[in-house]
This record gives sequence, C-alpha cells and structure tokens, in this order.
Amino acid sequence: MADAFAEFRARLAADRLQGASELARQCLEFMAERSRQVPVVEPETLVDILRREADLLSATRPSMAPLLNLLGRWKDDLEGLAVLPLVELRAAAAGAAESVVAESRLAVDRAAGHAAARLGAGCTLATLSLSSTVAAVFEKLREAGVRAIVAESRPLNEGHRLAAALSAWHIPTTLVTDAALGRYAAGADAVLVGADALMADGAVVNKIGTYPLALAARDTGIPFYVCCESFKRLPPSSEGPELEEMDPAELGAPELPGVRVMNPYFEVTPARLVSAWITEAGVERGPRAGATGS
Amino acid sequence: MADAFAEFRARLAADRLQGASELARQCLEFMAERSRQVPVVEPETLVDILRREADLLSATRPSMAPLLNLLGRWKDDLEGLAVLPLVELRAAAAGAAESVVAESRLAVDRAAGHAAARLGAGCTLATLSLSSTVAAVFEKLREAGVRAIVAESRPLNEGHRLAAALSAWHIPTTLVTDAALGRYAAGADAVLVGADALMADGAVVNKIGTYPLALAARDTGIPFYVCCESFKRLPPSSEGPELEEMDPAELGAPELPGVRVMNPYFEVTPARLVSAWITEAGVERGPRAGATGS
Repeated sequence: MADAFAEFRARLAADRLQGASELARQCLEFMAERSRQVPVVEPETLVDILRREADLLSATRPSMAPLLNLLGRWKDDLEGLAVLPLVELRAAAAGAAESVVAESRLAVDRAAGHAAARLGAGCTLATLSLSSTVAAVFEKLREAGVRAIVAESRPLNEGHRLAAALSAWHIPTTLVTDAALGRYAAGADAVLVGADALMADGAVVNKIGTYPLALAARDTGIPFYVCCESFKRLPPSSEGPELEEMDPAELGAPELPGVRVMNPYFEVTPARLVSAWITEAGVERGPRAGATGS
Repeated sequence: MADAFAEFRARLAADRLQGASELARQCLEFMAERSRQVPVVEPETLVDILRREADLLSATRPSMAPLLNLLGRWKDDLEGLAVLPLVELRAAAAGAAESVVAESRLAVDRAAGHAAARLGAGCTLATLSLSSTVAAVFEKLREAGVRAIVAESRPLNEGHRLAAALSAWHIPTTLVTDAALGRYAAGADAVLVGADALMADGAVVNKIGTYPLALAARDTGIPFYVCCESFKRLPPSSEGPELEEMDPAELGAPELPGVRVMNPYFEVTPARLVSAWITEAGVERGPRAGATGS
C-alpha cells in the first residue's frame, strides 16, 4: 500500500498540465481511498498516517495553495475522528475528504458564475494557459456570444487544450503565441485568468506570462480579472509559495557553454494590477477597479 | 537571368531568421551583381530594370524599413548614371550599391558603439529575438563583464541563435521562454532591442513580444533602449509598415473548428515607452528617459 502512495505522489510531482485546484481535488479523492485501505489496527495510527501523507502531498507541489488549503481543511476534520472505532473512522475520514472535494467544486462553479455575470454577453476575453475555473466561465457564457483570445503557453501548450474545449463549445477563438498576447489584448474587452494561489495582499501566483498580460491590460485600458475559489488564498503569514522551476530540457534549447536555460512555470503578479478578484463570495474590487489606463 | 532574380526574391520572401538590415544589405549586394550581369544593350533599359527590381524587392518585405531606405538610396544614386556608357554604368551602379552596404555596416557599428558606451561595463541586458545590432553591442561589451537575458522568440527561436553567439563570446547568458521575459526583466539593468523600422513619431516596429517587454521595463523601473542604424527610419508620411502575418502552421497548433491561429512576427511599441533611441548619430533621449517607474 505504501507503493500506491509513492506512485500517486510521483504522478503529482510530474504533472505539468493540470491546474492547482484539480490536482488538490484529486489528492483528496486519493486520500479518501487511503482512508478506507491503509492497513492498520489502531485508529490513532490511521490518523497519524493520513495526516503525514497529506503533509507530504502538500509539500510535493509547493507553488499550489489549494493543496495546502484543501488537504489542511481535511486534516482539521480528521482531528475529531480519532475517537471513533476503526471501521467508522475509515468511513468518516473518506466522507470528509469527499465533502471537501464537493465544496471545492461548488466554490469553482459559484466563482465562475459571478465572473460570467460580471463579464456579460458578447464579450471578448484574453487569457493564457488552462484554468478549469476560466474554462467554466467560458462554458457559462457559451450561448452568450463570448469570444476568446488564448496564448499557447509554452513549453507544454496548455493553451491548445483550452482552445480544444472552446472549439467544442463553438466559442470563436484566436490562438496566438505567448509573445503576441500583449498585441492581441487590445482586441479584448477584458483579461480573465485563474490563479494557482492568491497571496494575502492580493498578489496572484499564476502561470508565467500573467504579469506581462496584466501590464498589457493596464496599458490598453481593459480590466484584469482573477477568478478562483477562495481555497487559493494563502495565509497572511505566508511569504508566498516557492515558485517551481521545471526541467530546462522542456524548452528544446541547444546546450551551449555559459548559457543557463531557465524554465519557471509560475510568477507573481502584484495586486496593484488587479481590477477585481472574483471568488465564490462574489466580486471584490481591486486597486485597478474602474481604471481605464495606467 | 530573370530566374536569378525570381529565385533571390523568393528566398527573401521566405527568410524568417535574418534581421531587416542584414536582408537589406543582401539585397544591395545582389543588385550590385545584377548591375553587372543583366543582359541589355541600352543604358536606359538597364537603369529601368534595376529600378523596377529594387522596387519589387522593397515590396517583398513591407515590414522592413531598411529595404525601402537602402534600396531607395541606391535608386537615387542610379538617377545620374543613365548618361554613362553601358560598361561604365554597370561598374558605377554596382559600386554605388556596394558603397550603400558599407555605409549601412558603418552605421550599425557606430550605433552599437554608442550603445556600448551608454550601457557601460558589468551590465545585464535583457533582449529578445536576434538583432545584428544588439549582437554587435554585446560583442563590444564582451570583455566588459556584460551578461545577457534572452527570450527564445517563438515560433522560430532566433533567441537560440543569439544565445549561441553570446556563448561563443563567453558572455554569461540566461535563456528563457517569451512568457518568462517579464519576470526576468527584474534581474536586468536595462532592456536593449533592435528595430525592424522606426516610425516618424519614434514608435518601434520590432519582433512580437517587444511591447510587453517594454511594459515590463517601465514597470520594473529599468530603461528600454532601442538601438539601430537610422536607415530604419520611416518617412513622416508613412502610416507604418504592413505588419506581416506568417504561416500559422509554424505554431504547430492543432487544427480545431472555430479556432483561428494567428502568427504575427512584428508589433509596434509606442514611443512613450522608449527611454532612448541609439543610432549612429548618438543617443537621443525618449519620453521615458530618466524615468524610474510608471
């Protein structure tokens, strides 16, 4: 059974395509299974193992706040369960994990609903990468004449996967290189991005390229919206997540003496560039709200 | 001989790697050859053919001001030569083309010298794509502890070729994706780019991605320098060059119904984001000169 955990954790570490919330929910679904199956005799031992494994999963993708938050919420739920007999404990721990997953899905759906209401019919939205929340906003607006401008998001081109979803929903889409997104922002009514984490001051940890896109939005005079469930928030004590550096080989660059290839997936976009944060709680105006230029 | 012209023109149309000045000089070198070889008996006929071919070459790459300017300069030189006997005319026309090439090379070298003097020893410069002028600045600073941050420049990765040159000159270089350049600008002392054309108001036509890089420079509080020979200037009457759209297939994106793939190579960066234009004439301060933020 230890092998099943090691194998899941390795998959989590290697995943380069799925967003933070989706991965966090998969972690909880996996931990629900672990709750039912880890071979122990003592309830206390089960709780100890589950808590330790939850911590290990959070630490595996340190850039992703939802892992910390969703797994942390579940660890809190485990707290009171160690008094139960083992059979009931297993069912209660698994049920708690599944209900955190459901809560997260509901939050994403509500956040997307608030964003769709704010953006309205007939809008053209620029975005990058693949955020399941941003995709949910597009899905809600598919009958409302929404259009999309999507950057490919090198090196793994998650933008192609978003474009495929938009195509399936019959949403007219323009797909461009990451470098071209600044120029194309001028043709959008708003920029909409998801988040891997929200810092306490409102800064957004998201896919690399988000910062220049936010700058282009400000310079072009269109709003820059961040839409995510509030499980993405980091605690005020956090200095921000470690920004993971990925394998330079993914860039396919030649190996040259004295040339260091860097492949960061994430960057921090400061709160001052955000027009509004849109979560399940609604629309919270940011420093750029109402601004029409820099 | 008409085949030689058609073949050269097709190569010029298809070239996706060389900068505007380099291509303009190659055009003049080719026209020097044409001056010697086009089979005619009348001097006037030769001048007519050379002028028509020069116009055709300019029109082949409409984004590139140096083609218009260098070939235009040479066409002016041809003006007075039609009175010469054919043999002298051929030699004079070829010589005039070669001397415009030499003038252009000298201008690039002087512009690079002014830039190197302004930037000084020990600086870290961020750039994108491959500009022969920017490369010349790095070469001049190679013994002066210069460092480079280079974006790959999708889709054809001209940044890899600049990195190879920097590697050969033992200049420590960081190579990143185009999307990452905004984040890495914070680690540079200045941004330095070339230009495919300079508009009369100082706006810069250059590789796609230049505009977000200029925005990141402003937001980060580092200067944004444009270095090029003044043959890059467009006349005040010009509304700016046509911005060429290249083959979408270069992006390797999936073909999806309703998804339009766009592959522009160039964009216009407004003069208000420029700290200085550096040409063979020296350093001309721009609207952002001395600014340390937005």
